Amino acid sequence: MKIRVINPNTTASMTDKIGVAARAVAMPGTEIIATNPASGPVSIECHFDEVVSAVGVADEVLKGEQEGTDAYIIACFGDPGLLAARELTRAPVIGIAEAAFHLATMISTRFSIVTTLARTGIIAEHLLQSYGFSHHCRRVRAAEIPVLDLEENGNAALDRIIEECLRAKAEDEIGAIVLGCGGMADLTEQISHAVGLPVVEGVTAAVKLAESLVSLKLSTSKFGDLASPRPKAFTGQFKHLSR
Amino acid sequence: MKIRVINPNTTASMTDKIGVAARAVAMPGTEIIATNPASGPVSIECHFDEVVSAVGVADEVLKGEQEGTDAYIIACFGDPGLLAARELTRAPVIGIAEAAFHLATMISTRFSIVTTLARTGIIAEHLLQSYGFSHHCRRVRAAEIPVLDLEENGNAALDRIIEECLRAKAEDEIGAIVLGCGGMADLTEQISHAVGLPVVEGVTAAVKLAESLVSLKLSTSKFGDLASPRPKAFTGQFKHLSR
Amino acid sequence: MKIRVINPNTTASMTDKIGVAARAVAMPGTEIIATNPASGPVSIECHFDEVVSAVGVADEVLKGEQEGTDAYIIACFGDPGLLAARELTRAPVIGIAEAAFHLATMISTRFSIVTTLARTGIIAEHLLQSYGFSHHCRRVRAAEIPVLDLEENGNAALDRIIEECLRAKAEDEIGAIVLGCGGMADLTEQISHAVGLPVVEGVTAAVKLAESLVSLKLSTSKFGDLASPRPKAFTGQFKHLSR
Amino acid sequence: MKIRVINPNTTASMTDKIGVAARAVAMPGTEIIATNPASGPVSIECHFDEVVSAVGVADEVLKGEQEGTDAYIIACFGDPGLLAARELTRAPVIGIAEAAFHLATMISTRFSIVTTLARTGIIAEHLLQSYGFSHHCRRVRAAEIPVLDLEENGNAALDRIIEECLRAKAEDEIGAIVLGCGGMADLTEQISHAVGLPVVEGVTAAVKLAESLVSLKLSTSKFGDLASPRPKAFTGQFKHLSR
Amino acid sequence: MKIRVINPNTTASMTDKIGVAARAVAMPGTEIIATNPASGPVSIECHFDEVVSAVGVADEVLKGEQEGTDAYIIACFGDPGLLAARELTRAPVIGIAEAAFHLATMISTRFSIVTTLARTGIIAEHLLQSYGFSHHCRRVRAAEIPVLDLEENGNAALDRIIEECLRAKAEDEIGAIVLGCGGMADLTEQISHAVGLPVVEGVTAAVKLAESLVSLKLSTSKFGDLASPRPKAFTGQFKHLSR
Amino acid sequence: MKIRVINPNTTASMTDKIGVAARAVAMPGTEIIATNPASGPVSIECHFDEVVSAVGVADEVLKGEQEGTDAYIIACFGDPGLLAARELTRAPVIGIAEAAFHLATMISTRFSIVTTLARTGIIAEHLLQSYGFSHHCRRVRAAEIPVLDLEENGNAALDRIIEECLRAKAEDEIGAIVLGCGGMADLTEQISHAVGLPVVEGVTAAVKLAESLVSLKLSTSKFGDLASPRPKAFTGQFKHLSR
Repeated sequence: MKIRVINPNTTASMTDKIGVAARAVAMPGTEIIATNPASGPVSIECHFDEVVSAVGVADEVLKGEQEGTDAYIIACFGDPGLLAARELTRAPVIGIAEAAFHLATMISTRFSIVTTLARTGIIAEHLLQSYGFSHHCRRVRAAEIPVLDLEENGNAALDRIIEECLRAKAEDEIGAIVLGCGGMADLTEQISHAVGLPVVEGVTAAVKLAESLVSLKLSTSKFGDLASPRPKAFTGQFKHLSR
Repeated sequence: MKIRVINPNTTASMTDKIGVAARAVAMPGTEIIATNPASGPVSIECHFDEVVSAVGVADEVLKGEQEGTDAYIIACFGDPGLLAARELTRAPVIGIAEAAFHLATMISTRFSIVTTLARTGIIAEHLLQSYGFSHHCRRVRAAEIPVLDLEENGNAALDRIIEECLRAKAEDEIGAIVLGCGGMADLTEQISHAVGLPVVEGVTAAVKLAESLVSLKLSTSKFGDLASPRPKAFTGQFKHLSR
Repeated sequence: MKIRVINPNTTASMTDKIGVAARAVAMPGTEIIATNPASGPVSIECHFDEVVSAVGVADEVLKGEQEGTDAYIIACFGDPGLLAARELTRAPVIGIAEAAFHLATMISTRFSIVTTLARTGIIAEHLLQSYGFSHHCRRVRAAEIPVLDLEENGNAALDRIIEECLRAKAEDEIGAIVLGCGGMADLTEQISHAVGLPVVEGVTAAVKLAESLVSLKLSTSKFGDLASPRPKAFTGQFKHLSR
Repeated sequence: MKIRVINPNTTASMTDKIGVAARAVAMPGTEIIATNPASGPVSIECHFDEVVSAVGVADEVLKGEQEGTDAYIIACFGDPGLLAARELTRAPVIGIAEAAFHLATMISTRFSIVTTLARTGIIAEHLLQSYGFSHHCRRVRAAEIPVLDLEENGNAALDRIIEECLRAKAEDEIGAIVLGCGGMADLTEQISHAVGLPVVEGVTAAVKLAESLVSLKLSTSKFGDLASPRPKAFTGQFKHLSR
Repeated sequence: MKIRVINPNTTASMTDKIGVAARAVAMPGTEIIATNPASGPVSIECHFDEVVSAVGVADEVLKGEQEGTDAYIIACFGDPGLLAARELTRAPVIGIAEAAFHLATMISTRFSIVTTLARTGIIAEHLLQSYGFSHHCRRVRAAEIPVLDLEENGNAALDRIIEECLRAKAEDEIGAIVLGCGGMADLTEQISHAVGLPVVEGVTAAVKLAESLVSLKLSTSKFGDLASPRPKAFTGQFKHLSR
Repeated sequence: MKIRVINPNTTASMTDKIGVAARAVAMPGTEIIATNPASGPVSIECHFDEVVSAVGVADEVLKGEQEGTDAYIIACFGDPGLLAARELTRAPVIGIAEAAFHLATMISTRFSIVTTLARTGIIAEHLLQSYGFSHHCRRVRAAEIPVLDLEENGNAALDRIIEECLRAKAEDEIGAIVLGCGGMADLTEQISHAVGLPVVEGVTAAVKLAESLVSLKLSTSKFGDLASPRPKAFTGQFKHLSR
């Protein structure tokens, strides 16, 4: 089984880290292709970054379709371009935010999210509402660290995240923590150990969900609103997307 | 990995069928132990049947704890005793209704449920609300067949289910069907083929989710409201449950 | 009118106390039969306790049906087995949690719940959501006292409850308190007096609602999903439930 | 116990009818004072009628306060002036719409409303949402009869209501009917008999709820947002309301 | 274009202030007629005040209809009589609470309300729920100043409001403030300047929305539930409302 | 006042049409700059088209920032890139879907949407939920016409839309229609006339809302989650977006 794990930002070191985390939990027969768009933001920390990255995600799905791909993962906690990606393929597509939310509800009744910057909290809130998990999430918390600090300033970042997780444990009446950034994929074990709570991380969660769907031969519905896009011209720098 | 698939009713032929369906999708290393309580209703078609079966589910989890179990599945579409079971173990516990709902939202934007009897529809509605999936489900439909007809009168039952699924496809603006009974676990492929839609079935979905959680070392939270029950005396026929 | 007040746990002293509280508010013509199952947990403090107690509730309803009963009350704040009980009888069945919620909304716009243990808060949250009262309840608070402390350690328990109620009054922007345990049925007046707020207690509330429904000749609907369970075999220790 | 049943419109025959219905279900010691404002619309069929009638309701509560009143009922299905009335008294105040909704959820899992004119359906929808019962109500149906036809053209009106109730029973997946107009208070039994479903009528429901609250010594909270209005001048035709 | 801005209370100085604020933002061709009912409370601080003021609002709309009016504004933050007013005219009718909520969601993702007295917070909560903005509003805060203090004790009131707004900015994770009283219409600029956040004030917001609807020739729907009230007699002091 | 009306697709004839519609309702002093991205899809009929168009929207906002712009309008009914656009500017940004929803709730209690293709209905459903208008919208209907048919096949398209609107009027219990595509901006009057209902069209609605916000000096909040994006490198074809 070939799973394309798309890091929607263009920071290769983060892509590598995500790939390592994904491979660490993949089944023996699963090939993880960790990739990122050639074009886009080096990190995703707001709606604007998301909007640009979503085009990169679509590009990567289209590339994946050429190469034969069994499932896709969108490895940014805002799930940018998720429904668009689903239109482009029969293969399952999983966002890491949804993946983490789904699994968190299966091992706890209520969870809190610990994300990077407070300004991205609204993205998580919108996803929770759209997916139906608002009442499962007690609080969206921010460690107030920029995404790339997870790359460049790992230890300090880890300390801040653990601190916020401990606060969540003490104050939020929760049973689990959801990590709110793909760049935290390598920290799960350390955080869980330090905090003493189950910690759900989206990249690893998404790998298992993607494998699950593929094993069950459940493909993205092509009936109704996720059907392949209608044939259409695109112009300018997006001309190659015409179909 | 040892997964205990608990059929909450006491009809052994259904337990066997569920076991076969579970094994068909399990990973190579997964051992499926299909079981049912010694005591309880032969089928589950109302709240009363559910209440009694939930004790059987708890009994089976307690038995599983003695034998070393990595995950549990509750193979009845009402997820009877789900949170109680989670209190009794660190292992993940998955209900087949929740399993099907979760996966259905990953391959479609909206789904309908096709269940057995109309009177059980309210159970599905309550689960959808509690889990957060009410707005993903367009409609709960009933084929109006008693559960045991799935055992004894398979072809006619299958025809009725397919008929209702086709009606859902035509009328409900959906992308996928969720099958609303553990006893339909062997029909998924036929129904999906006949209906031309992805069909999500809970037993098989739950097996993959259970495997996923175990692979990720995500265990049921023992912090907060799913912690082990406090030591306590039970009386009468439930004396053995004292702890 | 004969009302069977079922204490779902097996602690007779609590059953007595509940009976006294029920009789204190019953109409002249109302006979209160306070009872508890022969089998089950001595107190109900988690989902597992609830699951076992729900069978006891059903047993007591079946017994009540033999004796001629006009209404039933389930005197545990999780309303265990409520819908199952409704299937077993035409008589009205009232849970004390729902009873308290209903009445609280009629004398205030927002209330808080003060319950025993924090871990049972999730049960109240689920009921609030299912019944439709989530937005009427500001907060579920726990006095962190085990249920049986209400029996054995009454004064200290009362102090803790009053303390938590006063905190709710000061912080929660509420107009009323709902007591979150059947074992508090004898404390209502003292708490209300100490706190200076209307205090709604479920056992007494349920008695009046049961009397109301009986007076109005409103019986549990037998059309649709609360109809009597279909005839069916039960096995093992539940064989006597075959119908 | 003295219950003031306020018919918010000024049609005395309807007030009488409501009084008869209320007395028919009242406890022996309950005195029903059926009354209507001196000023206002002869029937209430839209928001404008409601707005005017709410002042009449407040007037009647103020009058009731002078005479010593234990509880108030607002006998119009829009519950006009309900929260205002609660501010004016310590006595419980019950609206007939809320009363019917509350009791309907105790004997069924889902109900439909049958009201007079389609244009008043939105009033019921707003109440359902505000009270928290939206998901308990399958559908608001109108018999399309003006309110006063219930007075003047009783038999034809009854036929239309029964017809609509039967449609609800056949199509709505419900267990009970809620009658959506105080003017139907005398028809409950006939409708229930003809339809074969429990029929919840608000005037009678409210009488029992009012008696319940009084018996329990639960008065309207005077802490927080239902406290007595602050002293204040009123001008013009409302000068007498200065306090 | 003639816009009738109705201050639902009878304090002329507040009406004047509201008129000034409205004129300050009106388009060149817009004539603002600031008015208040002859009869009613001098300020609106609870449900009872609202109920009485709603009749005054209706009176003013009826007067406006005689004079030719293009749009109406109800300049009290509880939007008293809004739907009734809409029934009485084809002209658009805008409440200042809804106006402020609508605009606040266009310039921020989340806002808090700062109102006068805590006891009126429930009115705002009910409106937020009914309009659909509950999840956009983080918190309803009160400066705990009576409405008329805004007239008589302006500077102290302003200080209190700014203080509460600053608290909202620091604690509520918001992007904007909504002012919760028509009597604050002259303070917007000062508050916004002091707080460093966009501040949305309802009177000015409503003027622009009213102008917008009139410019677009969008009139209040007369099809369905906002159609003109049916002809009907009114009695007593409301006899003049017969139609 | 300079309003940049961004047609997110690249069909110039539709941009022109939208510009004409916008100018027809703009205030005397308002300059409408109708524009579309150089790159992107020729029409927007699915999530994938939306994702690509959102980048074009951002490009157009960045261009607008250079030229001095007082407000932006995103003239596609999915409001693509709305929150991203808001991050890029202090000027107000209005989507035509939100604009239409807001105004529709001010002139009716319930509305239906008539859009182009059924597959885009889910986009409207998601917006309704996120904005808070789900309960105001009875139904999302599709005329089943591709967007560009509105350009090339206008009369047939108009007939289909009117037909669907009439069905909505007859079946949906609504007071108004919302047109679900920017390409219908020139049809409002004809449809409204043919259907006999207020018809709310998003482009024209958005112009008035944009003017309103500008007149009120309400700018997009730069405090919290809509603050300007943090400085950051972009790579590849999006390098020019580095900041």
